[in-house]
Amino acid sequence: MSQASVDPSSLRVWKFGGTSVGDLDRIGKVAHRIARAVEDGHRLVVTVSAMGRTTDRLVATAREISERPNRRELDALMATGEQQSVALLAMALLERGVAARSMTGAQAGFRTSDLHGEARILKVETDALERALASHDCVVVAGFQGVNPNGDTATLGRGGSDTTAVALAAALGAPSCEIFTDTDGIYTTDPHAVPSATKLDQIDYEEMLELASLGARVLHPRSVWYARRYGVEVHVRSSFSFAEGTRVKHLSRDKEQSMITESPVTGVALDTAHARINLVGVPDTPGVASRVFEALGNAGVSVDMIIQGVPGDDSSRQQMAFTVAEDYVNEALEAVEDVTNALGGQATVSHEVAKLSIVGVAVGSTPGVAGTMFRAISDAGANIEMIATSEIRVSVLLPLAQAQAALNAVHAAFGLNQAE
Amino acid sequence: MSQASVDPSSLRVWKFGGTSVGDLDRIGKVAHRIARAVEDGHRLVVTVSAMGRTTDRLVATAREISERPNRRELDALMATGEQQSVALLAMALLERGVAARSMTGAQAGFRTSDLHGEARILKVETDALERALASHDCVVVAGFQGVNPNGDTATLGRGGSDTTAVALAAALGAPSCEIFTDTDGIYTTDPHAVPSATKLDQIDYEEMLELASLGARVLHPRSVWYARRYGVEVHVRSSFSFAEGTRVKHLSRDKEQSMITESPVTGVALDTAHARINLVGVPDTPGVASRVFEALGNAGVSVDMIIQGVPGDDSSRQQMAFTVAEDYVNEALEAVEDVTNALGGQATVSHEVAKLSIVGVAVGSTPGVAGTMFRAISDAGANIEMIATSEIRVSVLLPLAQAQAALNAVHAAFGLNQAE
Repeated sequence: MSQASVDPSSLRVWKFGGTSVGDLDRIGKVAHRIARAVEDGHRLVVTVSAMGRTTDRLVATAREISERPNRRELDALMATGEQQSVALLAMALLERGVAARSMTGAQAGFRTSDLHGEARILKVETDALERALASHDCVVVAGFQGVNPNGDTATLGRGGSDTTAVALAAALGAPSCEIFTDTDGIYTTDPHAVPSATKLDQIDYEEMLELASLGARVLHPRSVWYARRYGVEVHVRSSFSFAEGTRVKHLSRDKEQSMITESPVTGVALDTAHARINLVGVPDTPGVASRVFEALGNAGVSVDMIIQGVPGDDSSRQQMAFTVAEDYVNEALEAVEDVTNALGGQATVSHEVAKLSIVGVAVGSTPGVAGTMFRAISDAGANIEMIATSEIRVSVLLPLAQAQAALNAVHAAFGLNQAE
Repeated sequence: MSQASVDPSSLRVWKFGGTSVGDLDRIGKVAHRIARAVEDGHRLVVTVSAMGRTTDRLVATAREISERPNRRELDALMATGEQQSVALLAMALLERGVAARSMTGAQAGFRTSDLHGEARILKVETDALERALASHDCVVVAGFQGVNPNGDTATLGRGGSDTTAVALAAALGAPSCEIFTDTDGIYTTDPHAVPSATKLDQIDYEEMLELASLGARVLHPRSVWYARRYGVEVHVRSSFSFAEGTRVKHLSRDKEQSMITESPVTGVALDTAHARINLVGVPDTPGVASRVFEALGNAGVSVDMIIQGVPGDDSSRQQMAFTVAEDYVNEALEAVEDVTNALGGQATVSHEVAKLSIVGVAVGSTPGVAGTMFRAISDAGANIEMIATSEIRVSVLLPLAQAQAALNAVHAAFGLNQAE
């Protein structure tokens, strides 16, 4: 076998999440699994997240210093979590006789855009990585990070290690990557929330992309986008067993062949990590919406759902509302402050909201799907605050307190509960 | 003032130790002190150690994985401690309106040799640092680290942040640097051990170099070496007050002019971080010592004191003993194992030893100094196991249990106790 470059057929790209490397005992188990694969003749590139709740702790520390920590510095801080876990895993591998070495994202050639906290991978320069692979059985790459054009450490956003894994597979020419996590695959909805949820053997990139974007936290949306773009099959499986998980791949649109269920809906997602911002008392004149969303765009805030035109007490003044990720609420409020002040309105925040979504490749083309969803929600006693749709999904914003009942009802209404 | 390069007269290079940034409150105090200096018109390059006991905790974690963690991986792990503290300090500065940014050692241009855990600074490429200084009031540089010729993170050894500070001053053309620490200067001996120790206003590089090498932990020996070589004055002072500390600089050899005490001894140091390794039953034939020390050299183990030729029971077999830093005991034992096995001897370790040293530029040229030291030790009831001398110091190895009494006695014998 050539030592100079990597043979894709023997190469495995694996990713372990924070729970899978949550303590030294688990890091030992991961090392053992890698050692077995090396014995079987594989070479591995393994990316890992920070141990357990490390990232949360680092962010909490930063927030003790500053309500809105500088994002460049926050990235520099957060990136150390993965840098610690890769060094520890490499030590554990070396201890078991596996020729291993760790690399930071920068060392592994991850070049990113400069949007701190949400950087995109622009390129993976694999020279150093391939050199390392030529002389090691396993290279452990810090997930979630890279270096931006200024030479600064930039992070890929929460769950970015999934993207790291897919990007590694794509850059090294591996046909697939395996995401080891604390669940054994992708379910029709979060099985912690709905115990009767059904595990899927496979799911189409498009559906997974929507589900991941909608708060199904098993995969990071950008990793799915990246996997679809580069045709990398993603195998999501348990780090605690050798059972098959769920394969995310391109599936035929012939639903009878490809779908595990008869339902037009493949998955239901509940997202509680967004807040609703209400602009009250803003005049109903042309250009107001564009000023608001321009200000948000300039501040780097992504808006999720938007509703406009609900009349307030004063019919010459409209109410506008939108949702943003909880992490961006302060930025969003500051961004719209000038506009609302100038217009005599004000911005308020509702944190107690949840977004419930159904996803399926045929959702848009199957009559009655949205109606079934809305009826189930209504029967569960929940009030719909906003609606957004695309070809393959329908999302509604609900009061947080009513969300669980609505999730159960919708999941059951589409026949997604496990067969008894 | 030119923005393109750094004006040395307004530039300050500061270093804060781990205790000074031990928690967020203290980081806030450091940020406040920096902000005051910025208000006074200074630009600052500040290097900090890892917070509190962070480095110790990281090493302990690594040792849970491996009795002898791979040194490359240990470096990658340890370097994250300083990377966290610089990001947090930069955030605290930004929060106070100081234009600040953090840099890792690699980003700040620290190129090192490849001896992991004890790397030397080969060069500081200041381009990125000077660019950062042109647009920021304060650049916070991770101490203790750099990047080696392989592109790997390498650390400078314990206390290496002192060396980082001196190297920054030298590279940027600053005439001095200030080392802020938890004591208010350099004392005739560790004031925690001997409360009557006297603070020195100034001390010669040579004396400080010996004291630092001998376990006076206020400054890292390599930082003193570096300061002497580049003529950087080092001001060691308290991070908790604005009082003057001790200036480490080139002093005239005219002792009456330069020394604070009348004594030929400037300082007394006690070092408990070394262990004694005894080679028992090794034959008394030519070449044995060279085989032993060659093996240690190949393993990267620095030997401190050596004693040879103490006859054992069998007079054809000699006893040889040497001391090494505690961190290198395992490496040392492994390195000598082949030699001792081949020669029918064996290696044993004594951890319960301490090295007591006196230092002064005139120690070697003043008659009776060693005699005074040995008599004081003997009167204190301590047994001398080994002796080593240089022009400006005398060191003895003692049983650990007798070391404190010997320290008190020697410190008093040379008139170093504070005037009442």
